[in-house]
Amino acid sequence: MKGFFEATSVAVVGVSASPTNLGRAIVYNLTEFRFPGVIYPVGPKGGAFMGHKIYRTILEIPDKVDLAVVLTPAHTIPDILKECGEKGIKRVVIESSGFSEFADERKKLEEEILDIAKRYNIRFVGPNGIGLINLENGLAVPFMPFEFEYPLGKVAILAQSGGIGACMLNALAFENIGFSKFVSMGNKLNVNENDLLDFLKNDDSTDNIFIYLEGLADGRKLMELASRCTKPVIIYKSNYTKASSGIAKSHSASLTSDKATVDAAFKQAGIIQAESIRESVDLIKAFELKPMRGNRLAVISRSGGHAVVAADAASSYGFDLVAFPDELIKLVEEHSRAGVIKPQNPLDLGDLFELDLYEKILDMTLERDDVDGVCFIHNYQGIFEAGQSRQLSARIGPLMKKHNKPVVYCLFTSNKEMEKHKKVCQVPIFIDPWEAIRALDVLYKFHTKNVHPFVADFRSPMWTPRIDELLNDYLPGEKGAQLPVDLSYRILASYGIQTAPWLVSENTEEVLAAAEEFGYPVVLKTASTDVVHKSDEGAVVLNIKNRVELLEALTNLQLKFGHQVLIQKQIEEGIEIFVGSTQDDNFGPVMLFGLGGIFVELFNDVSRRIAPINPKIAVQMIDETKAGKLLRGFRSQDEADIEACADMMVRLSYLVCDLHMIAEVDLNPVKVATGHDKGATVVDCRMTWA
Amino acid sequence: MKGFFEATSVAVVGVSASPTNLGRAIVYNLTEFRFPGVIYPVGPKGGAFMGHKIYRTILEIPDKVDLAVVLTPAHTIPDILKECGEKGIKRVVIESSGFSEFADERKKLEEEILDIAKRYNIRFVGPNGIGLINLENGLAVPFMPFEFEYPLGKVAILAQSGGIGACMLNALAFENIGFSKFVSMGNKLNVNENDLLDFLKNDDSTDNIFIYLEGLADGRKLMELASRCTKPVIIYKSNYTKASSGIAKSHSASLTSDKATVDAAFKQAGIIQAESIRESVDLIKAFELKPMRGNRLAVISRSGGHAVVAADAASSYGFDLVAFPDELIKLVEEHSRAGVIKPQNPLDLGDLFELDLYEKILDMTLERDDVDGVCFIHNYQGIFEAGQSRQLSARIGPLMKKHNKPVVYCLFTSNKEMEKHKKVCQVPIFIDPWEAIRALDVLYKFHTKNVHPFVADFRSPMWTPRIDELLNDYLPGEKGAQLPVDLSYRILASYGIQTAPWLVSENTEEVLAAAEEFGYPVVLKTASTDVVHKSDEGAVVLNIKNRVELLEALTNLQLKFGHQVLIQKQIEEGIEIFVGSTQDDNFGPVMLFGLGGIFVELFNDVSRRIAPINPKIAVQMIDETKAGKLLRGFRSQDEADIEACADMMVRLSYLVCDLHMIAEVDLNPVKVATGHDKGATVVDCRMTWA
Repeated sequence: MKGFFEATSVAVVGVSASPTNLGRAIVYNLTEFRFPGVIYPVGPKGGAFMGHKIYRTILEIPDKVDLAVVLTPAHTIPDILKECGEKGIKRVVIESSGFSEFADERKKLEEEILDIAKRYNIRFVGPNGIGLINLENGLAVPFMPFEFEYPLGKVAILAQSGGIGACMLNALAFENIGFSKFVSMGNKLNVNENDLLDFLKNDDSTDNIFIYLEGLADGRKLMELASRCTKPVIIYKSNYTKASSGIAKSHSASLTSDKATVDAAFKQAGIIQAESIRESVDLIKAFELKPMRGNRLAVISRSGGHAVVAADAASSYGFDLVAFPDELIKLVEEHSRAGVIKPQNPLDLGDLFELDLYEKILDMTLERDDVDGVCFIHNYQGIFEAGQSRQLSARIGPLMKKHNKPVVYCLFTSNKEMEKHKKVCQVPIFIDPWEAIRALDVLYKFHTKNVHPFVADFRSPMWTPRIDELLNDYLPGEKGAQLPVDLSYRILASYGIQTAPWLVSENTEEVLAAAEEFGYPVVLKTASTDVVHKSDEGAVVLNIKNRVELLEALTNLQLKFGHQVLIQKQIEEGIEIFVGSTQDDNFGPVMLFGLGGIFVELFNDVSRRIAPINPKIAVQMIDETKAGKLLRGFRSQDEADIEACADMMVRLSYLVCDLHMIAEVDLNPVKVATGHDKGATVVDCRMTWA
Repeated sequence: MKGFFEATSVAVVGVSASPTNLGRAIVYNLTEFRFPGVIYPVGPKGGAFMGHKIYRTILEIPDKVDLAVVLTPAHTIPDILKECGEKGIKRVVIESSGFSEFADERKKLEEEILDIAKRYNIRFVGPNGIGLINLENGLAVPFMPFEFEYPLGKVAILAQSGGIGACMLNALAFENIGFSKFVSMGNKLNVNENDLLDFLKNDDSTDNIFIYLEGLADGRKLMELASRCTKPVIIYKSNYTKASSGIAKSHSASLTSDKATVDAAFKQAGIIQAESIRESVDLIKAFELKPMRGNRLAVISRSGGHAVVAADAASSYGFDLVAFPDELIKLVEEHSRAGVIKPQNPLDLGDLFELDLYEKILDMTLERDDVDGVCFIHNYQGIFEAGQSRQLSARIGPLMKKHNKPVVYCLFTSNKEMEKHKKVCQVPIFIDPWEAIRALDVLYKFHTKNVHPFVADFRSPMWTPRIDELLNDYLPGEKGAQLPVDLSYRILASYGIQTAPWLVSENTEEVLAAAEEFGYPVVLKTASTDVVHKSDEGAVVLNIKNRVELLEALTNLQLKFGHQVLIQKQIEEGIEIFVGSTQDDNFGPVMLFGLGGIFVELFNDVSRRIAPINPKIAVQMIDETKAGKLLRGFRSQDEADIEACADMMVRLSYLVCDLHMIAEVDLNPVKVATGHDKGATVVDCRMTWA
């Protein structure tokens, strides 16, 4: 990827003398951003632009070229790419549109250019993006003309939309936040977010990575990369709804994803997720600050009202407002004018008119071992206190660096004054205490997070060739059809998942013998896979207490649903939960956990993770749900065997990673033993073919 | 209230020649805001400031004075107020601090000035605020110096914090939104939000009302006023947590409120609630637009990425993205340059470079009967398209007015360009499609809302003197103690609330006879009010099937818990719910509704309203909860008797409004009949004394 950003000679293909030609903006941007290398405009009509000769073809260029930027009609791309190959150009940015985002039949064209790229060992960004910018060397090749108003910083911006990418650059510049590299990824045909993330995680110029996505190139790979990346990875993913699917497909050839699964996957991989453009900016702002390593917070405010708001926010995010030491309280009291404000945390400085003391108070507060971060709120209406206030603004950054703790700086003043502050203040300025405290929360969570490295390609230690043999004994069913009941239970057994003792049979004597062996009460169900809602259709008989009842139930079931039945020991005790898995287009097998029975649907109380999971993640999944509260012993009930429950979840996650022929697994209910009893037992199971 | 805003002569009390004197800023502001009336500075030392003679006392002023603004130490206020009274000044703004917000013992001082005000028929704003501004006549009396950079508009800003009030003015100015009147209410001793709301609801200069509150003067009165106000009332209420209680008390002498109750009350009264400063600005922005009368939305976007985001947002807020007519699609296709974007809704104009067509497309879209509002997204990077884009910005406002439909205008450009747009664009500019679509949602909900006028003082038609007599038969218990069991059931009966047939007795024969009368099975409970968790302590025996079991249960219960027992008919069928009420410091009796049993606690699935309620509100309460889903017939179960359930809720709401001696009522469970069965029956009831 490095080659994309460190080119010293650039061919711009698709430049003409026409005033409406978009390729000219690329040349313009390189000039505007002070690109120190050589620019070679290329266009079939020749001529000149901005003092550069326009070469008729790439091959005409007399010198070595590191990077070609191409903005010509889609159908011309194959030939141009070949020329690049022959010229020895290994990095190309294709900005043209009109590929699969426009019409499905253009997939062929995409395959063609992928083939050419492979043949010539070319990597290319795009098509259908606005290009890239490396702010360090002025390599700026978008076809929209940018003004060079962006500060150099440490945030890399990757966007699957030129418009949103550009708007992020503008929004960050407004906040005085600089960026390092910018890539508009377009259709991500050859270079995608994973390639770039892999590069940026070791890029010295980049501390934080922001990505806007409409579709995922490879969700599991993204999780693996992000979970091993030590830098913050912030992602805003859009395109979740039917309404956006059409426009997203036509905009960046992206397919819609399932929001709940993406949420789970990002969380699992330690990805910080934004839900809007504004939140994206907020999150990037947060990571401009120093690390928040604990939850002890001091709020210092010139405005009482903002202090009240900050206190509500601090409490809502679970921060601990530590008491200020006597020494500092005394200092504030001594210098307060009317003596009408009581010092506490939040500390209200509304009565303290010596602004030079503010810096001292902030310094003293940051110095303390029992303070992990500070929310500092300043408020004035310009004119009288303007000069001193700007001095204060300029001191926040150095104090933050000195103590290596975060200061969220809220400033409330007139808009004219605010402009002046932005010029001297080296840290982001917040204009709402809620947003400021939330930034600390984001930092705190990031710096104390515990992310398990994710493995994209997985075969579990439990898998044996015998399991494949087992599956081979059965004809695979149609997609979505249910697996034979006995096969499902045998598969569970081979992964060490405990089920209620069971037998599938059509023989009365065998059924009676099984009942004797299990002990009454037993449960009898049809083994027919044609019955979908077994309970609703009367295909399940519970609480069979003796031989007579069993024979009656057997006769009835066989008459109605066919000869094959499943007899199980009835498991009486335990809390009913549901453990399951499903297949996601982006992420493959996904684990599900929730309450059993109707409540899982009524409350939609389900946690999700991408498989495989380990016991720790399983316990996280349990504790995210209300079912977890029940298992933990709600209202002084006995705690259930959470370990056994987690163990079952881990085993199922292995199972679904190994056996790609299985689409969905539904263990519902599972009975988890409570108190002195141990274990978790599957009472009913349903699997479908992929 | 009018007198506060239309004064033509103002005495500013507390002005001196000292450069650190804060009173001088008041004189400065009046001058800066071009106040056309006369200013009389007053201060014991005399002298002059800004060309005005400083009078030594108010009485020295030779002319009639309409308004006095006072900023002198708290202890001097009584005498100054008396002087105002003698001078015939009827309106005073007290900006001094040091009252009950500083120390509880200063409550006396507050009472003293209230007395004086009453004696002289004076109304005063404050103390402990920063004053008020009427932008129409330049009456600007804050003691912080303001620059006159605020446009005149139609929003009134009331704030119980000068700092937050000022920051709202600045934030609105940044968005090009003007205000009409501003009041910093401080401790709200004599003039509170209700007085001002009552005035502003008929004020011709004000279309929208924003209020920031740390405490509520009279919650029920606020609900009554707001529910009858046809203008949008937007309130940001802070101070909900233990963390904020201290600082809020010391800042504005406000007490913390219960968030869930405030949320319910505001919703019930049609108050639009903000949860942060930023959201306050967003909501005010929304109401600068024309009304949204339906949910049919068109999204027109120059940026494909922003269109994807807008589509997600539209879908999430439930807007209907209507198809564009062929005529318009044809127009777009004809003028598209490369023909690489497919027209749909959202309509992507990324390929259409004739910006003068954008206005036509917007006009045509707004013209359509099947479009209720438009999200219009423009995006460019300055330089080439700057002039045309600014022309476009200037046309949004006139088009919105012409069609009387809202246009949320999102603009993405460089920060330099954005500044220029703000000068020509007459509507708010949004910088995130989510925020823009959300504004339409707020408008849509406001313009289609159905708010029931709330009655602050209420005695129900059901109350009769006999009910008071009933209560007089019993000694009222201690606060929080439980009412005698039979009294509770008799009170319910007198309000027509159906309970399971019951009898309280200590006589075995009576109990046996009752059982025969009710029919078995019956339930036996202790009638002792000392047992709090009856079920947990074994003080309830369910499912008593015959005389033998009843006698056994009776003996056991009487032995353990005393002689008095409650026998009830056992109600077998029905969905278990919970109906209750509690007392709130701000709002009085509050109704509660939720699932019965442990699930109400596990899921915290409770809806609230301020009593009294009508059947319509009761049904709203039911439908807000998951319990409501169950009652409506979850997973094709029979629907329950929702009418009976709502009727019980209405009756209980009357009961708690009438009987102030009752603090809490807990009807749990109530069994609601399903299918062909009708009725809702209280199975257990608990009431406590206020």
